[in-house]
Amino acid sequence: MTTTEAAQLLDRFRDGKIPRAKVLHAFQAAPVADLGFAQVDTHRALRKNFPEVIFGAGKTPEQVVKIAAKLLEHGQQVLVTRITADHARALRKKFKRTVHHTLARCVTIEKKTLPKRAGFIAVVCAGTSDLPVAEEAAVTVEVMGNRVERIHDIGVAGLHRMLARMETIQEANVIIAVAGMEGALPSVVAGLVSKPVIAVPTSVGYGASFGGVAALLAMLNSCASGVTVVNIDNGFGAGYAASQINSLATDKHR
Amino acid sequence: MTTTEAAQLLDRFRDGKIPRAKVLHAFQAAPVADLGFAQVDTHRALRKNFPEVIFGAGKTPEQVVKIAAKLLEHGQQVLVTRITADHARALRKKFKRTVHHTLARCVTIEKKTLPKRAGFIAVVCAGTSDLPVAEEAAVTVEVMGNRVERIHDIGVAGLHRMLARMETIQEANVIIAVAGMEGALPSVVAGLVSKPVIAVPTSVGYGASFGGVAALLAMLNSCASGVTVVNIDNGFGAGYAASQINSLATDKHR
Amino acid sequence: MTTTEAAQLLDRFRDGKIPRAKVLHAFQAAPVADLGFAQVDTHRALRKNFPEVIFGAGKTPEQVVKIAAKLLEHGQQVLVTRITADHARALRKKFKRTVHHTLARCVTIEKKTLPKRAGFIAVVCAGTSDLPVAEEAAVTVEVMGNRVERIHDIGVAGLHRMLARMETIQEANVIIAVAGMEGALPSVVAGLVSKPVIAVPTSVGYGASFGGVAALLAMLNSCASGVTVVNIDNGFGAGYAASQINSLATDKHR
Amino acid sequence: MTTTEAAQLLDRFRDGKIPRAKVLHAFQAAPVADLGFAQVDTHRALRKNFPEVIFGAGKTPEQVVKIAAKLLEHGQQVLVTRITADHARALRKKFKRTVHHTLARCVTIEKKTLPKRAGFIAVVCAGTSDLPVAEEAAVTVEVMGNRVERIHDIGVAGLHRMLARMETIQEANVIIAVAGMEGALPSVVAGLVSKPVIAVPTSVGYGASFGGVAALLAMLNSCASGVTVVNIDNGFGAGYAASQINSLATDKHR
Amino acid sequence: MTTTEAAQLLDRFRDGKIPRAKVLHAFQAAPVADLGFAQVDTHRALRKNFPEVIFGAGKTPEQVVKIAAKLLEHGQQVLVTRITADHARALRKKFKRTVHHTLARCVTIEKKTLPKRAGFIAVVCAGTSDLPVAEEAAVTVEVMGNRVERIHDIGVAGLHRMLARMETIQEANVIIAVAGMEGALPSVVAGLVSKPVIAVPTSVGYGASFGGVAALLAMLNSCASGVTVVNIDNGFGAGYAASQINSLATDKHR
Amino acid sequence: MTTTEAAQLLDRFRDGKIPRAKVLHAFQAAPVADLGFAQVDTHRALRKNFPEVIFGAGKTPEQVVKIAAKLLEHGQQVLVTRITADHARALRKKFKRTVHHTLARCVTIEKKTLPKRAGFIAVVCAGTSDLPVAEEAAVTVEVMGNRVERIHDIGVAGLHRMLARMETIQEANVIIAVAGMEGALPSVVAGLVSKPVIAVPTSVGYGASFGGVAALLAMLNSCASGVTVVNIDNGFGAGYAASQINSLATDKHR
Amino acid sequence: MTTTEAAQLLDRFRDGKIPRAKVLHAFQAAPVADLGFAQVDTHRALRKNFPEVIFGAGKTPEQVVKIAAKLLEHGQQVLVTRITADHARALRKKFKRTVHHTLARCVTIEKKTLPKRAGFIAVVCAGTSDLPVAEEAAVTVEVMGNRVERIHDIGVAGLHRMLARMETIQEANVIIAVAGMEGALPSVVAGLVSKPVIAVPTSVGYGASFGGVAALLAMLNSCASGVTVVNIDNGFGAGYAASQINSLATDKHR
Amino acid sequence: MTTTEAAQLLDRFRDGKIPRAKVLHAFQAAPVADLGFAQVDTHRALRKNFPEVIFGAGKTPEQVVKIAAKLLEHGQQVLVTRITADHARALRKKFKRTVHHTLARCVTIEKKTLPKRAGFIAVVCAGTSDLPVAEEAAVTVEVMGNRVERIHDIGVAGLHRMLARMETIQEANVIIAVAGMEGALPSVVAGLVSKPVIAVPTSVGYGASFGGVAALLAMLNSCASGVTVVNIDNGFGAGYAASQINSLATDKHR
Repeated sequence: MTTTEAAQLLDRFRDGKIPRAKVLHAFQAAPVADLGFAQVDTHRALRKNFPEVIFGAGKTPEQVVKIAAKLLEHGQQVLVTRITADHARALRKKFKRTVHHTLARCVTIEKKTLPKRAGFIAVVCAGTSDLPVAEEAAVTVEVMGNRVERIHDIGVAGLHRMLARMETIQEANVIIAVAGMEGALPSVVAGLVSKPVIAVPTSVGYGASFGGVAALLAMLNSCASGVTVVNIDNGFGAGYAASQINSLATDKHR
Repeated sequence: MTTTEAAQLLDRFRDGKIPRAKVLHAFQAAPVADLGFAQVDTHRALRKNFPEVIFGAGKTPEQVVKIAAKLLEHGQQVLVTRITADHARALRKKFKRTVHHTLARCVTIEKKTLPKRAGFIAVVCAGTSDLPVAEEAAVTVEVMGNRVERIHDIGVAGLHRMLARMETIQEANVIIAVAGMEGALPSVVAGLVSKPVIAVPTSVGYGASFGGVAALLAMLNSCASGVTVVNIDNGFGAGYAASQINSLATDKHR
Repeated sequence: MTTTEAAQLLDRFRDGKIPRAKVLHAFQAAPVADLGFAQVDTHRALRKNFPEVIFGAGKTPEQVVKIAAKLLEHGQQVLVTRITADHARALRKKFKRTVHHTLARCVTIEKKTLPKRAGFIAVVCAGTSDLPVAEEAAVTVEVMGNRVERIHDIGVAGLHRMLARMETIQEANVIIAVAGMEGALPSVVAGLVSKPVIAVPTSVGYGASFGGVAALLAMLNSCASGVTVVNIDNGFGAGYAASQINSLATDKHR
Repeated sequence: MTTTEAAQLLDRFRDGKIPRAKVLHAFQAAPVADLGFAQVDTHRALRKNFPEVIFGAGKTPEQVVKIAAKLLEHGQQVLVTRITADHARALRKKFKRTVHHTLARCVTIEKKTLPKRAGFIAVVCAGTSDLPVAEEAAVTVEVMGNRVERIHDIGVAGLHRMLARMETIQEANVIIAVAGMEGALPSVVAGLVSKPVIAVPTSVGYGASFGGVAALLAMLNSCASGVTVVNIDNGFGAGYAASQINSLATDKHR
Repeated sequence: MTTTEAAQLLDRFRDGKIPRAKVLHAFQAAPVADLGFAQVDTHRALRKNFPEVIFGAGKTPEQVVKIAAKLLEHGQQVLVTRITADHARALRKKFKRTVHHTLARCVTIEKKTLPKRAGFIAVVCAGTSDLPVAEEAAVTVEVMGNRVERIHDIGVAGLHRMLARMETIQEANVIIAVAGMEGALPSVVAGLVSKPVIAVPTSVGYGASFGGVAALLAMLNSCASGVTVVNIDNGFGAGYAASQINSLATDKHR
Repeated sequence: MTTTEAAQLLDRFRDGKIPRAKVLHAFQAAPVADLGFAQVDTHRALRKNFPEVIFGAGKTPEQVVKIAAKLLEHGQQVLVTRITADHARALRKKFKRTVHHTLARCVTIEKKTLPKRAGFIAVVCAGTSDLPVAEEAAVTVEVMGNRVERIHDIGVAGLHRMLARMETIQEANVIIAVAGMEGALPSVVAGLVSKPVIAVPTSVGYGASFGGVAALLAMLNSCASGVTVVNIDNGFGAGYAASQINSLATDKHR
Repeated sequence: MTTTEAAQLLDRFRDGKIPRAKVLHAFQAAPVADLGFAQVDTHRALRKNFPEVIFGAGKTPEQVVKIAAKLLEHGQQVLVTRITADHARALRKKFKRTVHHTLARCVTIEKKTLPKRAGFIAVVCAGTSDLPVAEEAAVTVEVMGNRVERIHDIGVAGLHRMLARMETIQEANVIIAVAGMEGALPSVVAGLVSKPVIAVPTSVGYGASFGGVAALLAMLNSCASGVTVVNIDNGFGAGYAASQINSLATDKHR
Repeated sequence: MTTTEAAQLLDRFRDGKIPRAKVLHAFQAAPVADLGFAQVDTHRALRKNFPEVIFGAGKTPEQVVKIAAKLLEHGQQVLVTRITADHARALRKKFKRTVHHTLARCVTIEKKTLPKRAGFIAVVCAGTSDLPVAEEAAVTVEVMGNRVERIHDIGVAGLHRMLARMETIQEANVIIAVAGMEGALPSVVAGLVSKPVIAVPTSVGYGASFGGVAALLAMLNSCASGVTVVNIDNGFGAGYAASQINSLATDKHR
């Protein structure tokens, strides 16, 4: 029931065309979700410059193309994560603006690139094997309208590499720190900056890394304040949260 | 080696009083940490309106009093977390501005309350048993110069309670969502807001809650974007990160 | 906004005392929860012969007495689970109908005992150490208006004991099977009956029972169809679900 | 030995055609299992409109065809779960009534479709990746003689979608709630209905979802009463238990 | 229903005193358990020289005394495991033959000591902290009519101590090997003997011993053939199984 | 140093041909292992009618053939476990007595079948998927000179099937009980027999069976006395231990 | 059999007082352990300046005093770890050289302090709560004859503190790095030194630190080469291994 | 800024060509990492005879060739671990000194073999399946300039095999003990030697070995002093640490 429909209902009631019980029933019977929608719509309007995101894993290329088409119809940016080469091919065939971020295993289709916010997000990562996850975060961050600084291969075993890039890191509004194995990078970085650090454990490692559990636990137990954590390999999730924070930092708001 | 000392060193070199090798050695031998200190100091200056925090658990009341005294000497706010009644008593005896936040198991000693930032942080929690952790987050948020809205007992089993408070939650700059048991609250909240949600699993529950592991896993696996997670029962950590984000949103910066 | 208030609002609108915009606003602004309440109320009305349940653990005797008082004011049955002797004492002092189920660690306060449904629920348990959990289930079942058959100490190591009681078990509408250690009882029972079996793992055991995890896993992996599982030691949860099912079986409905 | 055979035996004894010892021997020598069979038969008779179910995984197509043939000989419905395309092909080749439920990875072969019970079972699921498990539950429910409502893609991150379908959900006799990742759906649903909710965790997710463990734990720790849980991905088990409950609700019984 | 009763039943049927339906009903209604009892009784007769065992943990002294009294009435040996000083006191007060095995945390009450079997069982243990569990095994073994050799403190870190006792170990019919920490003793022993080795992990250790899990896993993964394992700290279980095996080795049987 | 060599050494010392220090040195320097060998040899002689066993997994067909050839040279029985079709082919090509036990994934090569012991070992298993592990146990038992009774598909969900075979099970000297999923079979069996039960958990199952962990824990926590456990899927280990026990029961010994 | 006894035996044989068979028997029958002892003695002689260590936990004060007395009789250093105040009191009462290292929860009793080796071992630790474990390592290191440098509170969250002490750390022969929580310290240190780093996880932390498991996993997965790990809280084990290494570095050897 | 550049800077300052502020700025602005580099360089100089190591897993052959080429340009030894046949082929094609250690899954490219240190490292392993990990350790040890003794297949189930080689083991400066399954070898070895033992758990085993976790836990809980542990299958890590220790033992140092 839209606002217009509700107004008509009330008018018909005032005009005596329908009994009061019917009006009451209409409002009561109105599924919460409809009113809920209004509310949800409001807040979706607030964030509508954020692209809807398609999780590619476990979807067929056809399904992904179909969902992407629907989003593009509504004039939205498209970000597809966790794709295979097949997904990329199918999307490229259909939509010419398709950009395939090979390393990040993502596709973006932007009708018109979003204007970039002032300030930037740093995506730092410990080792070269962490790059796919770091890139998923970076691509997410960019497609959502943020500038990004990629700082790679600064694992804690070679501290000088990290310290050499610290100035840049300290200038970022948000830092996404990606690491597998012992997952120490976010703790060391967070000890040196005053901005929020979003830690992303990766499944990089073997033996007692248990597919990223060792890094995850290290990050949850960080002795440095200001670290929050996302799921193992969840570059997208970190990028999304970082963009929300950077938006708070740079967009106009109360 | 301070900047003054370095200048003197150079002058003596120029004056021929010391050989070049000695200057080079002085700079090379200079412990990285001293130069590091400079850098660290700079960024600590940037955040010096943030109180240093004392983790009370496992420290004697005497130790806590001693550290607090040192912080107060330097004119800093004091926040002590995870305290016992004994800690509180010892601090109150020594420092008259001591405020004991019983439920939060914290003490704050503020020389002068920080001016509060515009915008606020919402601390929502699922059940009454989650209150101590939620209060630790709320007290942290407040002592760091933020306004806070406490919204309690809105667990997902009674959805209407949460929906009734949604408007307030949506107005917050950051939401801290605290829950034990199945830990679903942050996911449901994050689906309805466009701001960052920091999820705090609590150790509330029994049996297969495994001291908060069930809630932790649920939060790490949230199907809603924009959720980041801290350690089980880590109300302070969530409050600290939320304050960093709110500071980005409201303080003057690039 | 109650139905009565809504009706008055509409009448005043029809009478021209308030503008349409105000009515629309009232309904739209109405917190979703209020309409939600209506819906929730409806379904709570459907189940209003079910007592609200107070989880005693972690609440002070005063808190429990207060909540119980509020429930009794509204004419509801009271069930308090996981209580200590102190809770029981405080409740008995205040409410004379208080019944303390020592073994079940529960208190019930019934203004008027609910009429019992036709059909019964069997609560079977493996060992004497499982009795407190079994009794929590049985007391829950009874206070919610069901007849219960308690069948104790029929662990699978002495199969004849279980077989001797099988006829009774087969007559029940629902079976709650409580077991610790290897948790085999629900599988064996479910193989012999055509009714739903709700399995309750208990934390009874030592070593590699891991506080009930062994029994929980056994029950989740039951080779017998028709077994569903609740949390470790969650006698109340099993009793609640069993009562819902027995209500379906015996109450009038479509 | 069927009841008829036993009656004939007794008649021949009364008629003097066989000695008493032979009768006694027949009953005594009858392995417990035979007498057990009688008992089991009785209760199997009670449930004989339930199809025997073949777990396809790990069986060869030949084995599955053979077991199915035997069941069909006895006039029973056939449900084969966890099948591959090979199983389906082999069954279709042999039995023309074979229906291959591709998404559910099941085959059903029904001589004569069972009359459907009054009342229905709702199968709700959180995401599109949970569909195969949800469909396994739905197909099980249908082949066992129940009507089913499928309600898909109502994950808690988009609460309005779930609320929009709540009315239907509330009308169901039993709800099967299927979810991976954080597994919050059953808790939210159970908070809004008065009927039993059977929760099915799925292995959908990555990283710290640990193949469905995160969802499983969330469901076991649900803060909403009336939730019982089955094994990860066990759509069949949920469907079977739901059918047992719906049968109690709708079939004639004491 | 005994054979005699069944015969009478049949005679009365033949004589026309009771209808066929009644006979059929009697046989069908005969609880499986009754026939089962016969079977169970038989095998209990076979093992009636084995004492019934009372698990003391979680039982009150009164309960234990009561069960012990019942067993003694039937002329059986009594073994109570996992007792406290209170249990021991209560039993000693009531039964004068009570023997309190302090280290083993057991009480035995033997009317008449069983004659000891030829052959013996070796109970070997790694460290002095493993002694309570080893003694529980040894006391069990003795009360069940076996001779026992106790060989203590022969952990693998001092291999010579174990080798020095190897001759005795090799002469045993069964070896119970008790160890905490890394749990290597059973593997080393089993490599040097041709008799069955029953491994008992103990909860002795700290940190990553996880209450005996490290030892348990080591024993389950033993590279030496002939090792079987019981639960952590389950000295009684090992003693019971060892006695069963020694009984096979030494009692008269086919 | 053999006994003969030692004697010669002593003689040369007595004859004054070598100094005392040299004799002492010879004995001291003698690697413990040599004396150890003597001891080990003795006990290997005691068990030399037991075949050496080759674990095929992870070995090439060539390696397996080579080890088998060496064993056959020494006149020993050969048992190869965990083989592939390739292993079997390679062995059959080389040794004509090769028997490939397809289901058990084993090969045996017996020069001369061992005479079978009196008494037999029962191998019972819960489901048809557990057969490969049960067969590995059965083939091991047979090749080591024991008679075996295979009793399949008697899972606890259909208790009558197990009870029907109980008489045979009770006659066995040792019972090997193989089960996956909830692993209840050994507990139920052990409650009905007086002989040792060796429980073998299998990796059969899905979801929260965690590759056999659920069954393993159930077996370790068995409420029935007399159950010992081997590693998941370790049919060979169970067969080996069972044969050791049956040998004690039937071979001549003190 | 000591060397002296063996010599006497040989002399008596040479003198014809005993037959050769008796000598051979003596050596052969000599428990392997006796000869083993010789060997073990040899290598214990090599390390005899290392004190025997008494693990105090779980031993009574009397037991500890007794073992200490025996060690002192043999002129050895005494180190008792994991003691309570009671242990310390009992030891001090008996032995006046007793030194109670309160923080380290150790007692040492040194007849004569060992001369210290050249070179030193650095014991670095992350936080003040890790001190007891670090001190256990330091005291162990000292009592075994090594010089130690204690470097405390240099956790990775304040990198400058660690870098300030790096020069000292780099000069050590071995570094023991002690840390709880996220356990990152050993990785960062090992990246900056060329000497072996022994990592000691502590149980310091809460929530998902799981009693030190998070730190343990981080250390096992260190991205820096040269890190080896000991059990959680095992300061003694780290000190012992470090002393072995420092002994290799500084003692005379091939 | 290299030392040369710094010297030039100072000279220009002394010559009055640049102001003091500029010099100060140059040193201050110099990224910490540059000064850090100096320090790091110093310690890398100390260890520059150690080859840089390339972890092959997850890198393409091209990437590996490229990194190897860069290392060779700088005159360094090359060690590539965890390679596939493709890596080996690509390296061999490019660099003729390439040596492919098939079993160890490593490639080494040595311009000039390092002179071997006095003293040796023993690499002992339990079973033939542990060989690849043991070989990775051995190859690492050798390429870093150490002599190695390989001692294979001395698992604790055949103790005599280990004792037979003990003399050699005792002569080593460091022992690397590699074992899967129950992981007992390092404990037994460490009980017999006075040198450091580095334990390497392997993922060899099945069922409850959990990919090496059982062995890992056994090693962390070793009852023998002097054992430190590396990650599962981390032969390289053990070899690296062993070489560091052997270098301490044999190279000239304070």
